[in-house]
Amino acid sequence: MLNFTHHIPTIVYFGKGQVSALESELKKRAKKILIVTGQGSVKKHCIFDDVIREIKKANVPYVELSGIKPNPRLKSVYHGIEICKKESIDFILAVGGGSVIDASKAIAAGVKYNGDVWDFFAEGVKPTDALPVGTVLTLAATGSEMNGNTVITKEDTKRKLAFGSPVIRPVFSILDPEYTYSVNKYHTAAGVVDIMVHVFEQYFSHTPASDVQDRIAEALLKVCIKYGPIVYKKPHDYDARANILWAGSLALNDLIGEGKQEDWASHAIEHELSAIYDISHGAGLAIVSPSWMKHVLSKNTVNKFVEYGINIWNIEKNRTEIDIANEAIDRTKKFFKSLSMPTTLKEVNISDEHFEKMAKNAMEDWGKIGSFKKLTEKDIVQILNASL
Amino acid sequence: MLNFTHHIPTIVYFGKGQVSALESELKKRAKKILIVTGQGSVKKHCIFDDVIREIKKANVPYVELSGIKPNPRLKSVYHGIEICKKESIDFILAVGGGSVIDASKAIAAGVKYNGDVWDFFAEGVKPTDALPVGTVLTLAATGSEMNGNTVITKEDTKRKLAFGSPVIRPVFSILDPEYTYSVNKYHTAAGVVDIMVHVFEQYFSHTPASDVQDRIAEALLKVCIKYGPIVYKKPHDYDARANILWAGSLALNDLIGEGKQEDWASHAIEHELSAIYDISHGAGLAIVSPSWMKHVLSKNTVNKFVEYGINIWNIEKNRTEIDIANEAIDRTKKFFKSLSMPTTLKEVNISDEHFEKMAKNAMEDWGKIGSFKKLTEKDIVQILNASL
Repeated sequence: MLNFTHHIPTIVYFGKGQVSALESELKKRAKKILIVTGQGSVKKHCIFDDVIREIKKANVPYVELSGIKPNPRLKSVYHGIEICKKESIDFILAVGGGSVIDASKAIAAGVKYNGDVWDFFAEGVKPTDALPVGTVLTLAATGSEMNGNTVITKEDTKRKLAFGSPVIRPVFSILDPEYTYSVNKYHTAAGVVDIMVHVFEQYFSHTPASDVQDRIAEALLKVCIKYGPIVYKKPHDYDARANILWAGSLALNDLIGEGKQEDWASHAIEHELSAIYDISHGAGLAIVSPSWMKHVLSKNTVNKFVEYGINIWNIEKNRTEIDIANEAIDRTKKFFKSLSMPTTLKEVNISDEHFEKMAKNAMEDWGKIGSFKKLTEKDIVQILNASL
Repeated sequence: MLNFTHHIPTIVYFGKGQVSALESELKKRAKKILIVTGQGSVKKHCIFDDVIREIKKANVPYVELSGIKPNPRLKSVYHGIEICKKESIDFILAVGGGSVIDASKAIAAGVKYNGDVWDFFAEGVKPTDALPVGTVLTLAATGSEMNGNTVITKEDTKRKLAFGSPVIRPVFSILDPEYTYSVNKYHTAAGVVDIMVHVFEQYFSHTPASDVQDRIAEALLKVCIKYGPIVYKKPHDYDARANILWAGSLALNDLIGEGKQEDWASHAIEHELSAIYDISHGAGLAIVSPSWMKHVLSKNTVNKFVEYGINIWNIEKNRTEIDIANEAIDRTKKFFKSLSMPTTLKEVNISDEHFEKMAKNAMEDWGKIGSFKKLTEKDIVQILNASL
């Protein structure tokens, strides 16, 4: 196990009706709020009404920024920063999924920075301060509600970049499983895939003796495999939504990655796909992740796939190592398919046209890609070709 | 899954050499420190020297309170409170195991309270403020380094009582696996048992669909079962010490209990044992916990034992439920024995002399005992008799 610092101060209010915690949280923290929302689903499903009711109880004035898109755009972030400055906002409340939260975090850091907020993403500048962000989560997927990361797309250059800092970790998050009931089948499934691939990026590693982290990672995968099909088929199953929701937060709040070398190659590749083609991140991961697994499987990595196959897919131990590993990867792909996720680029109408450029961009954006297996541009093109 | 609030703000510096984080933490937080230690082992093993070196770097004056005993006494708490007031202490640094940390927490709350600190334990008074506490942990066991609980024994009446409050959760904890190398075999084993029984108290529950919590609980048990025998045999095995240390913190920092009804009957019973006979808490639990399991095993609880038996002890699924459950309990007891822990009261020279009184005291101290199965005084006497 490697050395690490564990610090996850986000207060999570988990369960039905927890929106009622908003009143006291906002009273304590906010003088004027920017409410950030997406493309209207929170308004269709009364979540927004609940939030406004609580804000009114807290008696804090607010301004609204709506219309944040999936793969949120830098333009909206600039717009949000402008509003915050003009309106003297001191608290941002993100009501939505990962995109809304990511945009809110970028706005929060941008307000306190004298330069261009894109510097955090593209120039490696580290923010030293940010407005506090709270969230009311409506989609189990990105884990953004409990971590210090944000991913934003610059539209004109089609670059999707990330940065992480403790100053943008939400101060509180409201996680009501019922608020995820209205997520459609496609995005529900994409969320489950996103959670699972977050786990993979931290699980597949050469760091020895990270049993605490790895057994917890497996715990979260088991939850996804049990409850993923249920949330897909029965969107109003409270217990299934609750388990997926909580697993999603724990899958990317540092707990299973700290003390380990992490990988993130599938994300590096997928970000290029969704930057250029604007596909859903989870769908992109369902396509890329199994191809990445097959590509990196070797004598040097087979042990970890065997661990994965036996502990997660209950594959018989008496088969050969390579056989167990391949079966585990196939089972992963089949599971994604069972949730009607695409597992080939063809299914989402993407050809090999931009593969070289994507590989080059990914390399440029990430500096180096992969630690479980370090990838070259050539590797990335091969993985994309295998995903066709 | 039940509703819950998750908030674990303790900063954990995990790994070798992390004592170096003390300097900046203390600089930031302390003007005058009370260092609390136990019965001298931190001085024998240079941990104290490391701490003093960092405090000197931080240039913060300090006062020392040494000699805290296992099953820490109320008298030391009073003494600590007196020192803090007299010396205008504003920060408490606990350097030791759970007893030292528990004493420090009680002192921290007592300093800010106008009445008798025992009110928090015996009268249900809730503290509203406390001095900040930081810890340098030297024993994997209680989880006190990351939670808001403390257990103190009032010597004259032989009552061992607990209270919990977010105001006494440590602000930071230094967890260096090498600092646990010098723990002797007996206390190492008792620590592993303590961690496992903490998990049991939260795992054995009727709350449905708490899969996230339960799979993580199993993750921690697997770590104990794999690494417990290694830390016992090879006290200087870094990876084994690291896994047990981190599992110990996660086993009782709220993560696996929140969203569930918890039990804590084994602890209620064990506290009476160690209050009267001053035995090691982990040893007491090794005796009580398997007897408690046998006692509560019924048609109504067998499912959970089957889950435990299959997921933790890999017992074949095709056996009868009751058979799997009994085998799981037997395996638990055998595991404790394999660590040379006592599993009968006879081994620690305890007779049935005070059973009635202990049952009565436990009932009085805890109000009600058990939720997986609610226990009466008669149940407690039966469990103690079965532990002879």
